Amino acid sequence: MTLLQCLALSLGDPAGIGPEIIVEAWAQRRNKRLPPFCVVGGADTLAAAGKVRGLDIPVCAVSSLTEAAAKCDEALPVFGGMDVPYTPGKPTSAGAKLALASLELATQLAIGGDVPAMVTAPVSKSLLSEIGFEHPGQTEYLAYSCELSSSDAVMMLAGPQLRAIPLTVHCALAEVPSLISADLIVHRASIAHAAIRRDFGIADPQIAVAGLNPHAGEDGAFGREEIEHIIPALAALNRAGINATGPHPADALFAPHARSGYDVALCMYHDQALIPVKALDFDTGVNVTLGLPIIRTSPDHGTAFDIAGKGIANAGAMIAAIQMAGECAAQRRNA
Amino acid sequence: MTLLQCLALSLGDPAGIGPEIIVEAWAQRRNKRLPPFCVVGGADTLAAAGKVRGLDIPVCAVSSLTEAAAKCDEALPVFGGMDVPYTPGKPTSAGAKLALASLELATQLAIGGDVPAMVTAPVSKSLLSEIGFEHPGQTEYLAYSCELSSSDAVMMLAGPQLRAIPLTVHCALAEVPSLISADLIVHRASIAHAAIRRDFGIADPQIAVAGLNPHAGEDGAFGREEIEHIIPALAALNRAGINATGPHPADALFAPHARSGYDVALCMYHDQALIPVKALDFDTGVNVTLGLPIIRTSPDHGTAFDIAGKGIANAGAMIAAIQMAGECAAQRRNA
Repeated sequence: MTLLQCLALSLGDPAGIGPEIIVEAWAQRRNKRLPPFCVVGGADTLAAAGKVRGLDIPVCAVSSLTEAAAKCDEALPVFGGMDVPYTPGKPTSAGAKLALASLELATQLAIGGDVPAMVTAPVSKSLLSEIGFEHPGQTEYLAYSCELSSSDAVMMLAGPQLRAIPLTVHCALAEVPSLISADLIVHRASIAHAAIRRDFGIADPQIAVAGLNPHAGEDGAFGREEIEHIIPALAALNRAGINATGPHPADALFAPHARSGYDVALCMYHDQALIPVKALDFDTGVNVTLGLPIIRTSPDHGTAFDIAGKGIANAGAMIAAIQMAGECAAQRRNA
Repeated sequence: MTLLQCLALSLGDPAGIGPEIIVEAWAQRRNKRLPPFCVVGGADTLAAAGKVRGLDIPVCAVSSLTEAAAKCDEALPVFGGMDVPYTPGKPTSAGAKLALASLELATQLAIGGDVPAMVTAPVSKSLLSEIGFEHPGQTEYLAYSCELSSSDAVMMLAGPQLRAIPLTVHCALAEVPSLISADLIVHRASIAHAAIRRDFGIADPQIAVAGLNPHAGEDGAFGREEIEHIIPALAALNRAGINATGPHPADALFAPHARSGYDVALCMYHDQALIPVKALDFDTGVNVTLGLPIIRTSPDHGTAFDIAGKGIANAGAMIAAIQMAGECAAQRRNA
């Protein structure tokens, strides 16, 4: 019998909820039929984080991924010896360094093919920045590590009811209209199309493109971005054989009967994508990075320092992220 | 025994789905425990619209609202003799004139106190404009008829899971940031607060105010509207004894656990309010006009000319609008 390879989980900020939801996921591994996984670093942190949830689980340090795969059903395997004292809710510079070291090693394992996929736990962007991390977030770091431009790494939010991609992300709403262009839409939609085919096994992904303005602008009555950018982008996508429709009025696009008509919604801005994903799938939303040579998923929430260590953080999104990473890895393995 | 007063329903555009969903609502009046209602105009249109759904219901012309109340359980009462031939999916100028006449008479009945509430079926704004109607929509017409400024009529979308008010509505997204001001937020929130107390029987309404920018701007990192307008508005509202919180990151505001913490969300733009309402409550969304001396609700959808007469239009939102109008009327009656 060949052992399935382990996925690698980065620890995230050790003072956030990352460690406890990782332990919770491991405790539920059989119920939830999770693929085998190991954590990069933080063995004592994980053991302590489990205890705050009443989970006294076995954590075992492993010196190889083969050993991790052999042991992961009986104990939570931890690869890499780095750690810090567990101080939930009280982030430290040493903790941020541990989070970064864990991310870096997990990334190298994924790029090197030692693991079939990686799942990242939440980090504090501002704390990472203070210790010299020069990327806006983990996604951009991963693109850089894969020798890609950050514009080639496409963030998709995915829950059981909806997959959505925000075309623009962390900028003022006032800047959004000037950032939208036909080229950007075509670039992101093309990456999404290829990645959804490869990693989600959907042969002909249907992409629904949202309008920017209310009622998708009503033929230019409320804004012209649909006419000037979105409609030309749709024409170019269709010429390239990509099944993209729109521009759809965003308010109707996420209604139940509308959602059944597409595989992914391409949205023009952060909240246009994240409002419906979180309204519908709050506790199970996964952030997937499309367009990378590696598979990377993440729970769609932050460090939640305010509730860390209280034993109440919901592990649903972490569990969903591990499941999705395993499913994407199986798609690539069986391709 | 005193008969309950009838609500008045305007017919809406007779070539749209209005007539058929009104007939469907009447057919379901006992199941859905609807308050008594009559329709203003369109007796033959309603009878014909019922037949396309296989509903051969009795329609009776009435000459007074007392007669309507006496007959409404046995037949669908129609007050006012105006009508046009039924041409579903093919709107006409004569149909738009009928829609307007129905709206005008229903409004006069509500303002005069002859009916305790009115429910408006959907009209075509562009067709109304062509026949000389000078208001952007029914809501503005109602404000004008009540001798109010249109800025005093506040649109609220309400479904079983969420109530939301858009601060700005039919304008390009690029214009939204310049339209937001502390004064506007305070004005609308104050009207909403008073109306929700009076018409929904909530003694101390909790108002959650959304941010404009992603993550509510993250302390100015992605836009300053929260700092310059929303936070000062919240301070003014709180000084006035109104329980308003925020600015809340919009993506998290509509998640299930967040929704349980407020009675209404005040949103900065059209899609910020309508995306979650329609994602969660698509077939039962009601548009309520707050701040008027009269009670007015409406199904939160348009004329749907493309499916009119096919017998497939969902009457859920019309039924919910009639129920809500009846509940608001009961609140005022029992106050």
